[in-house]
Amino acid sequence: MTKVSVLYPNGKGKKFDMDYYCGPHVKMVMELLGTALKGATVESGLAGGAPGSPAPFLAMGNMYFDSVEEFNKSFGPNAEKIMGDVPNFTNTEPIIQIGEVII
Amino acid sequence: MTKVSVLYPNGKGKKFDMDYYCGPHVKMVMELLGTALKGATVESGLAGGAPGSPAPFLAMGNMYFDSVEEFNKSFGPNAEKIMGDVPNFTNTEPIIQIGEVII
Repeated sequence: MTKVSVLYPNGKGKKFDMDYYCGPHVKMVMELLGTALKGATVESGLAGGAPGSPAPFLAMGNMYFDSVEEFNKSFGPNAEKIMGDVPNFTNTEPIIQIGEVII
Repeated sequence: MTKVSVLYPNGKGKKFDMDYYCGPHVKMVMELLGTALKGATVESGLAGGAPGSPAPFLAMGNMYFDSVEEFNKSFGPNAEKIMGDVPNFTNTEPIIQIGEVII
C-alpha cells in the first residue's frame, strides 16, 4: 500500500485552519480522487519530542492508495486544483512524502 | 488519540536499515512501552511530491497512545534506551512530532 503524507511545517507566523482543512479541503480531495483513495487520516500538531518544544508540523494529512501508479493516475490530473486550495487554509509550504507501508 | 511520529530525514550520505528497524528496534519499543502502545505503523520513503524528487524522509514510524499523558508515562522512563538504539539503524537525526488524531 502506498501512503502519501502531506506535512505542513511549523514556523514563525505560520498558520493552519483545521476547520477549513477537515471540511471543504478534505471533501474536495475525496471527490476528485474518488475510489483510488483508499483512506485518509489527519493529525493536528501538539508538540515536539523535547520537553516544551513546539510541534515541527502544524498538521499532517495522509492518503492511502493501492500503488504509486494509482496515486499518480488519480492525483496527477487534479494536482493543480488541489494544491491551488492550499492558500485557503495555510501560509506554510507543504512537504510531500510518498512512501510504502511496511508495517 | 495521540499519534507520535518519528521522521528520519533524507540527505546526502544518510542511511536507514529497515530490517533492523522493523526487527530488533520495533520489538524493543513494543516490549518497553507495553499496553500503553495502542498501535504502530512504519513507512519507507519512496519519493517526494515533485516528479523525480527524492523522498524527504527515509522512513517514518508512528505510535498511537490513548493520550499524551500515556505516551509520557510509558516513553519517558524508556526514552534513553530507545533513542540509544537509533545509531544501530540510521545516521540521520530523527524529528519527533506529537499530534492529535483528528480524522
